[in-house]
Amino acid sequence: MLVLVTDFGLAGPYTGQMKAVLHQQAPGVPQVDLFADAPSFDPRSTAYLLPAYAGSFPLDSVFLVVVDPGVGTDRGAVVLRADGRWFVGPDNGVLAMVARRARTKRWWRIAYRPPAMSNTFHGRDLFAPVAASLAQGDPSALADIPGPAVPGSQWPDELEAIVYVDHYGNLLTGMRAERLPRAARLRAGKSLVEPARTFGAVAVGVPFWYENSNGLAEIAVNQGRADRALGLRVGDGVAPVAGEPGLS
Amino acid sequence: MLVLVTDFGLAGPYTGQMKAVLHQQAPGVPQVDLFADAPSFDPRSTAYLLPAYAGSFPLDSVFLVVVDPGVGTDRGAVVLRADGRWFVGPDNGVLAMVARRARTKRWWRIAYRPPAMSNTFHGRDLFAPVAASLAQGDPSALADIPGPAVPGSQWPDELEAIVYVDHYGNLLTGMRAERLPRAARLRAGKSLVEPARTFGAVAVGVPFWYENSNGLAEIAVNQGRADRALGLRVGDGVAPVAGEPGLS
Amino acid sequence: MLVLVTDFGLAGPYTGQMKAVLHQQAPGVPQVDLFADAPSFDPRSTAYLLPAYAGSFPLDSVFLVVVDPGVGTDRGAVVLRADGRWFVGPDNGVLAMVARRARTKRWWRIAYRPPAMSNTFHGRDLFAPVAASLAQGDPSALADIPGPAVPGSQWPDELEAIVYVDHYGNLLTGMRAERLPRAARLRAGKSLVEPARTFGAVAVGVPFWYENSNGLAEIAVNQGRADRALGLRVGDGVAPVAGEPGLS
Repeated sequence: MLVLVTDFGLAGPYTGQMKAVLHQQAPGVPQVDLFADAPSFDPRSTAYLLPAYAGSFPLDSVFLVVVDPGVGTDRGAVVLRADGRWFVGPDNGVLAMVARRARTKRWWRIAYRPPAMSNTFHGRDLFAPVAASLAQGDPSALADIPGPAVPGSQWPDELEAIVYVDHYGNLLTGMRAERLPRAARLRAGKSLVEPARTFGAVAVGVPFWYENSNGLAEIAVNQGRADRALGLRVGDGVAPVAGEPGLS
Repeated sequence: MLVLVTDFGLAGPYTGQMKAVLHQQAPGVPQVDLFADAPSFDPRSTAYLLPAYAGSFPLDSVFLVVVDPGVGTDRGAVVLRADGRWFVGPDNGVLAMVARRARTKRWWRIAYRPPAMSNTFHGRDLFAPVAASLAQGDPSALADIPGPAVPGSQWPDELEAIVYVDHYGNLLTGMRAERLPRAARLRAGKSLVEPARTFGAVAVGVPFWYENSNGLAEIAVNQGRADRALGLRVGDGVAPVAGEPGLS
Repeated sequence: MLVLVTDFGLAGPYTGQMKAVLHQQAPGVPQVDLFADAPSFDPRSTAYLLPAYAGSFPLDSVFLVVVDPGVGTDRGAVVLRADGRWFVGPDNGVLAMVARRARTKRWWRIAYRPPAMSNTFHGRDLFAPVAASLAQGDPSALADIPGPAVPGSQWPDELEAIVYVDHYGNLLTGMRAERLPRAARLRAGKSLVEPARTFGAVAVGVPFWYENSNGLAEIAVNQGRADRALGLRVGDGVAPVAGEPGLS
């Protein structure tokens, strides 16, 4: 399975051109859009989303991860194998948290150079051909690199910030819910948000936080938009309230 | 064919995760996105869209219908077979109008319980596996229920309201055009809207209503946005003007 | 490969219904969304996008191009074979620039009439079945026409205007970059925009223009939105500054 994580959008020409390459070079392999609206120009936010979502895909899935504001500069291009799945993308930290949380991992530099490569669309010209090769069991595009990639190595284990706003206006954070005390309240902008189990467990219009279906702490409003209700967006801080009962 | 009707959006992580389950559990079955932007938290609007659109899909298609504000509460999960097609979704009325308009129908309760089920994403964890099984001819996930599901049974045959605003700003109503007199004018907010056959039949910028390509009465503006021109949105009332010539 | 270029959007019911027809009538042929957000009601803008993007798809690809404000009127329906690829769409000029730039080309009128055809959705009812037939090597839907279609024949070779605003707010123009002097500055609204090679070659927040990955002159802002920074949208004029050094 080929899994696409980008900030390209689906409606415009970028995802389609990339998929055309995948159809040609890895015919018959299913293509799944996981995120086409990852935060633009922001590899760090996607880095914290990726390990939460990757684990629900089958082993040997190939993730094509293209959030790449440095395209056309001298930033590197890498492949990571982590816990039995492949990840292809720019060497800008976007794969850092998948790597850090993996039990087994290995990095490669991409040695493949396409016959023609644009300055601004390596997703189509470089990463998609490499992902297609890996999906077909061909690792010849890879070259060993001695150590792990550097970008992202200083980032914290949990990111106390909003990393994604979904279609409903829900606010996904970079914190794994299992790392928070169950009764913790979260400070989000000027608001304090209580935990709940699911949407129907609070009144309509009430903000709450919960462990989302991929394990992240997420803030929502029952039948409303948390982004508008709380006035928050990607990058804004969210953190457990310190020194309260129930907090470890 | 697997047909997806949700309020999940396509760009974010929900549709993709659901499709990954379908690719794994029903490999090779085509997946079609019919609505990924059904009105949020609003099963009733989708209920009136569904019978208009379902009929154009082949027999034995499996519709995965997930507009599910009650996810994680004790609302039920059902399967409907109506006029030779399958419908899988929450028991909140979203399938009520498909059932009411069907010549032949049968309801089941979903007996299947997945090995792990989140509180907030039954589309991925429960409904997608059931839809995949049905697409492969396996009904073992189903358990009979004695009578039809209750939600939606009090709803009118035609809904005199906007049920969907499309990409162009066109306003789809919950009324079948064949139930309206041909010359009827519609009252939509503060405006009276005349009928026309198609876009090019009225001047640029003029609002009109017509029988859309799936049989619903729809209000549009030639080369403009009816939602903005008329200041209307999902849930607002639209009704034929009473007592006029040509009205039955 | 079937390649979709429309102004339908992906989330609503139009693209999905069209794809359902393609799945039924051309099973197993990959379907790629190239543009689902072509400028609405504006065949001319898409006409200048199409030749830039078509060339990166394999020979014998079938492009389904539906930007069709005249649907349901007496505008014609045509097929073009240009440089080894098929293009299906309304005879409103949307295929004019692909035809003009092709080394080899031939036009047909669509002779096929579907058993049922709505007034407003020829993409599903007429163009999709024809595209599916062509994708399977069946040209029986076609009838010869004596000369090339007329709409678009007066249009200039390069369109000095914005033809598309992408997901990032980048402004694609109807000018091929190779036709502009390398050092040309572009006048875009009230601004003068300098050329650069890629995003990372200018400071964050600075507007620049470059040859995009499909050969068009495109205006962007490094890590920002050019549409908002420059206050521009589809149809606004963009042109090289006349009489400057380096301009031919």
